[in-house]
Amino acid sequence: MSLSERYSVLFESVQLGPKTAKNRFWATPHAIGFGSDSSGSAAGYRGTRAAGGWGVVFTEATTIAPEMDKTPHRMSRLWDEGDVRNLAHVASAIQEHGALAGIELEYNAAVGVMSEGRGLTPRSPVSTPGESALAVPYAGGLIELDHDGIEEIKQIYVSAALRAKDAGFDLITFHCGHAASILAHFLIPYYNTRTDEYGGSLENRSRFAREMLQAAREAVGPDIAIGLRLGVDTLDGPFGLGDRGIRSGGDTPLFIEHMDDLVDYWDFVIGGFDWAQDAQSSRTVGENFEKPYVDGLKRYTKKPVVNVGRLNSPDTMVDIIQAGQCDFIGAARAGIADPFLPEKVRTGNIEDIRECIGCNFCVSRDIGTAPIACTQNATTGEEFRRGWKPEVYLQAKNHENDVLVIGAGAAGMECAMVLGKRGMRNVHLVDSASAIGGSINWVSKLPGRHEWRRLIEYREHQLSKLSNVEVILDTEFTAEEALDYGAGIVIVATGSHYTRNGIDPQNRLPFGLEPAFGDKLLTPEQVVRDEVPVGRRVLVVDSDGYFMGPGIAELLAKNGHEVVLATKGEHIGEYQRYTREITHTINDLLGLGVKLRTETAVTAAGPSTALLTSPYREPEQFEFDNIVLVGTRSSDNSIFQGLLQRRGDWEENEISAVHRIGDCVRPNFIADAIFSGHRLAREIDSPNPAQSLPFIRERRIIGGSDADFELGARALLPLY
Amino acid sequence: MSLSERYSVLFESVQLGPKTAKNRFWATPHAIGFGSDSSGSAAGYRGTRAAGGWGVVFTEATTIAPEMDKTPHRMSRLWDEGDVRNLAHVASAIQEHGALAGIELEYNAAVGVMSEGRGLTPRSPVSTPGESALAVPYAGGLIELDHDGIEEIKQIYVSAALRAKDAGFDLITFHCGHAASILAHFLIPYYNTRTDEYGGSLENRSRFAREMLQAAREAVGPDIAIGLRLGVDTLDGPFGLGDRGIRSGGDTPLFIEHMDDLVDYWDFVIGGFDWAQDAQSSRTVGENFEKPYVDGLKRYTKKPVVNVGRLNSPDTMVDIIQAGQCDFIGAARAGIADPFLPEKVRTGNIEDIRECIGCNFCVSRDIGTAPIACTQNATTGEEFRRGWKPEVYLQAKNHENDVLVIGAGAAGMECAMVLGKRGMRNVHLVDSASAIGGSINWVSKLPGRHEWRRLIEYREHQLSKLSNVEVILDTEFTAEEALDYGAGIVIVATGSHYTRNGIDPQNRLPFGLEPAFGDKLLTPEQVVRDEVPVGRRVLVVDSDGYFMGPGIAELLAKNGHEVVLATKGEHIGEYQRYTREITHTINDLLGLGVKLRTETAVTAAGPSTALLTSPYREPEQFEFDNIVLVGTRSSDNSIFQGLLQRRGDWEENEISAVHRIGDCVRPNFIADAIFSGHRLAREIDSPNPAQSLPFIRERRIIGGSDADFELGARALLPLY
Repeated sequence: MSLSERYSVLFESVQLGPKTAKNRFWATPHAIGFGSDSSGSAAGYRGTRAAGGWGVVFTEATTIAPEMDKTPHRMSRLWDEGDVRNLAHVASAIQEHGALAGIELEYNAAVGVMSEGRGLTPRSPVSTPGESALAVPYAGGLIELDHDGIEEIKQIYVSAALRAKDAGFDLITFHCGHAASILAHFLIPYYNTRTDEYGGSLENRSRFAREMLQAAREAVGPDIAIGLRLGVDTLDGPFGLGDRGIRSGGDTPLFIEHMDDLVDYWDFVIGGFDWAQDAQSSRTVGENFEKPYVDGLKRYTKKPVVNVGRLNSPDTMVDIIQAGQCDFIGAARAGIADPFLPEKVRTGNIEDIRECIGCNFCVSRDIGTAPIACTQNATTGEEFRRGWKPEVYLQAKNHENDVLVIGAGAAGMECAMVLGKRGMRNVHLVDSASAIGGSINWVSKLPGRHEWRRLIEYREHQLSKLSNVEVILDTEFTAEEALDYGAGIVIVATGSHYTRNGIDPQNRLPFGLEPAFGDKLLTPEQVVRDEVPVGRRVLVVDSDGYFMGPGIAELLAKNGHEVVLATKGEHIGEYQRYTREITHTINDLLGLGVKLRTETAVTAAGPSTALLTSPYREPEQFEFDNIVLVGTRSSDNSIFQGLLQRRGDWEENEISAVHRIGDCVRPNFIADAIFSGHRLAREIDSPNPAQSLPFIRERRIIGGSDADFELGARALLPLY
Repeated sequence: MSLSERYSVLFESVQLGPKTAKNRFWATPHAIGFGSDSSGSAAGYRGTRAAGGWGVVFTEATTIAPEMDKTPHRMSRLWDEGDVRNLAHVASAIQEHGALAGIELEYNAAVGVMSEGRGLTPRSPVSTPGESALAVPYAGGLIELDHDGIEEIKQIYVSAALRAKDAGFDLITFHCGHAASILAHFLIPYYNTRTDEYGGSLENRSRFAREMLQAAREAVGPDIAIGLRLGVDTLDGPFGLGDRGIRSGGDTPLFIEHMDDLVDYWDFVIGGFDWAQDAQSSRTVGENFEKPYVDGLKRYTKKPVVNVGRLNSPDTMVDIIQAGQCDFIGAARAGIADPFLPEKVRTGNIEDIRECIGCNFCVSRDIGTAPIACTQNATTGEEFRRGWKPEVYLQAKNHENDVLVIGAGAAGMECAMVLGKRGMRNVHLVDSASAIGGSINWVSKLPGRHEWRRLIEYREHQLSKLSNVEVILDTEFTAEEALDYGAGIVIVATGSHYTRNGIDPQNRLPFGLEPAFGDKLLTPEQVVRDEVPVGRRVLVVDSDGYFMGPGIAELLAKNGHEVVLATKGEHIGEYQRYTREITHTINDLLGLGVKLRTETAVTAAGPSTALLTSPYREPEQFEFDNIVLVGTRSSDNSIFQGLLQRRGDWEENEISAVHRIGDCVRPNFIADAIFSGHRLAREIDSPNPAQSLPFIRERRIIGGSDADFELGARALLPLY
């Protein structure tokens, strides 16, 4: 079977009520941090996915009334005429490329206390304390809907649907999943303990959704497709609602049958109060991980069905369509990492797909209320504001230069690749190791981080195709040699390492662990990369605050060590709260018998004894054989500094510029190292490549117009 | 001495280099959540303070380059020409009222990981791990400045100062306090461990500030006044830096003398890494609490000095000016609560001052990245976006109505007062208690909450002046009686109460404590309001998450009880993290011997025994005599519901409308109850007073212009 035959099923058109999708690729609703207020950026992002071949492209969960304000999250709003204008701009950007434009409407039933407006009355089937990112029950409650209220909320939905129609969307999804929307709160027994005709039986718990959908359908007329995004299973504890939720083996099939006449399609998701169960990282789940919950549900509906669940590989996509699991391949993250995935499948360039590594850096930016970013794809979120097209690389104005890139880690690989694609005469990427990838080679040995190797594999393949790029391994470099090398542009990407001194955000002087414990104190590199022997009893002290501390604790516990994981920070693996991995991580660590200690200071109490103190516990002493200090990282900067010291010799050696990128500038996320390399290569022919060009900042500007939001506009310039 | 003579010293003009302040009232820089992107709102807010008589009005700490991005905080930026246009709008709004307009420039040396831009390189005197609201050391570090970098940062300051000049500001303050700015990081030994000419001696640690100020002065010329906001004392532990900080009895006088030739004024603050020490709540400090740190410093300078520190009372202001403590009365919160404080002093209307209660709700909105709000002053932040002037109340179109307000708590008091000021024919404010104020009467009995009584006192005085408002106390009301009362508009403000069922955000079914412990389980009202006897050993279970749980624990511990304070939440008094009271609260509770237990579930293990379990500790059992459940609050809604049930009888009773406000709609912050009453009274003559009128949402709108940001503009309407 030819490639095109193998994948042709993915490119069949599918009817969605009055609309026709050109293929089976469905970019599901996901927040990108631009909301509806930065609609140029939103249009750039969504439009790029449409250009990449997705047949259906959704914006994101959109709040439909001020009482459902999610400040500080910068989410999409469809409250007023200004929002209609902004979202119309997004819908057009999608439709321009032949995709259907979808919007997801939501009356959120869990709200923060930090609304932008005030005096609001968020409502819920029953009066409940708050349940949100900032859960302050004192003031985070929702009020119980009386019958007038039920009619009002229905009208709020209908009005929003009419505005969505005005904005030109083809598809309207009503959110009834993730326990985020009032539709789900009516449906799920945990949330709905009403005793009137809107509570109790499944029919009663579905009543609000039925009435609302009927009213919305009547209002928007026959030309728009309407669907439900349904949380088909709210999971078992500790991640879900257990018996008090809705289960795919329970009420869900009945609900689907009961509602099927009112929808044109179904979009199935999973998860209870924690939507992140639907977006689990590669640490916990693999491809098509929602199959156990969604498989077989299609038989209860006559309408097309969308599935999600880390659907990354075209082969899996074909398999689940052919097996009848679903009609559409839904994805957010696969398209974040590679907007052109459908086009690459269609044109047979499977090897060029920039496959999602499942690190959930995208999720972390959403939780942190910042614009979206992606570890694999540096152009994500930059489509409009920096004008970066993910698959278009213009020849550099200074392409008649040879470039030496020292260090083939995240930043160096990316930079060399983009410089290669921009047609630099010769790019030499050198590294002292025997493989490219830098620290990703050992970081990916941590439990559950194997897929992070895709960062290397994608770039390895791209580099292999570039005839102007040469990868030179097993080669130590000094500043002297770099100076001599003959390249006109030298780029240093020498990375960073974990320190042993114990400086952390709470203490800027070295602390006493290293002097007290000496060689018993190990660094992450020693434990994971160098695999030095570790004793039975291990204390992991984490002031790094992300994956490394918990990852080493998990690695050692799995290898039979007795592990205590202590941090001065308020939480285990702080940043995993943003990637939404933390509940699984803590659950897994506790399951392995790891003792967790937060807000805990560690001091030496003897040659093999540590004292752990905290305001929230009695002091504890632990004997141990080794301590692993997951501390601060420090840049490896000697080559760059050496080159700076020899600045007087650059001209003689025909060096026009020396730059540095990635962790050797500032230890940062892998995503930022890759961004740093990408950015420099994209702007290598700008007047001062060391500094980022201004990006478009969408905001109200006094006396402003659309011309203020074009690259190079005077409004964006620093003036001095 | 006449009133005007008593206070005349406050209205003397003072020279500030090339500028003259018309009086001694100085609105210090403080963030208001509108940043420079919502400059209409910022101009409305700042301009209102200028109209209220402040002689100098500052905007807020303003970041001067993209590398100092504080996303998600919506702070002021002065990066580009668009920012200049927006801030020029703010400066004009200030100057329009005869005040000097000031801006505070800051290269922040502690940065979050959630920047809006990417690939940034925040820099610091030495390489340090991150220290910010989101401290993720893995990626939150700052890089050490080399000599090129020092020149670059100086130039960044100079460029920003030139943009500030373009924007028309009269005064430029460079921030060197709160350990927030790179100037402070150079100055403070804790942050600066450099060994070159920029570290070590005080002269060396001041070098960067001197060089930068000289360069900035030269660039902006002689027509702008330049000052330093100096953190004069970084305090002792646990709130400060101890011996490694800068102390008002140590280096500070030397620094002032050393720098005095370069500045036109000094603005003194206190505090180390935690700026909230400078904005402590009334729980911990009283008026002029910074005196121990700032007193006497004036003798080291020839330039005018600004002081802050809960300077609320005009008498204190006069005293400290006359004592030579300072030349300017600096304040943020006093002006948040009453922008017209200076005018009220000048015109002899001291009793009308809406005095700050020191609750730090304003601070909480900043920390929560939402627009500013104030408990005392419902108009704060609404000056532009809702068009509310704090001292202007237009006669209501429907003023020929009598209004009955049932319930004289926060919402009812405020509503009756505003309705009175709007000239309603008769307003009757009724309550079953013998005094107005509702729950504030007993909440203010908690340790350190006495000043919250000012919420009552201010309104009591205003109500007493309104001849059309009658306060009727000791009067129980039923729906029936309200129907009969003869008022055309009935407003229900009956508040809320703490429940005993144990429903909380983590569990929507009643939990087992009440059945197990029965009468031993007490509510906050029983303990604080009713003063029922409490046994020696007390377990306080908090799922309320703000001041009540810690407040009751403190109250009981001070009265000699043995107290354990447990919460399922991640933190003690969650919302006190936002008011920035939490470090003091925890310190005080530990000092009183209260055992603190977070992320802890409480279950009954016997008739007087509770089992406390947590993933982070071994299980514990406690014997106790009483359990105080600080649980969820529930609205007291029977009168409102009763009136709804009798809707058919309204017409006959000449009732045109029944509304509800405050906690009986939704238990919320006191600030929101007051807002709710204020909002209804401001909009009592709108087409549908039950719903808020749309406010101005400043954002980019596609095809937009300034006309889209006027009240009533089509862009702001919901359309359907």
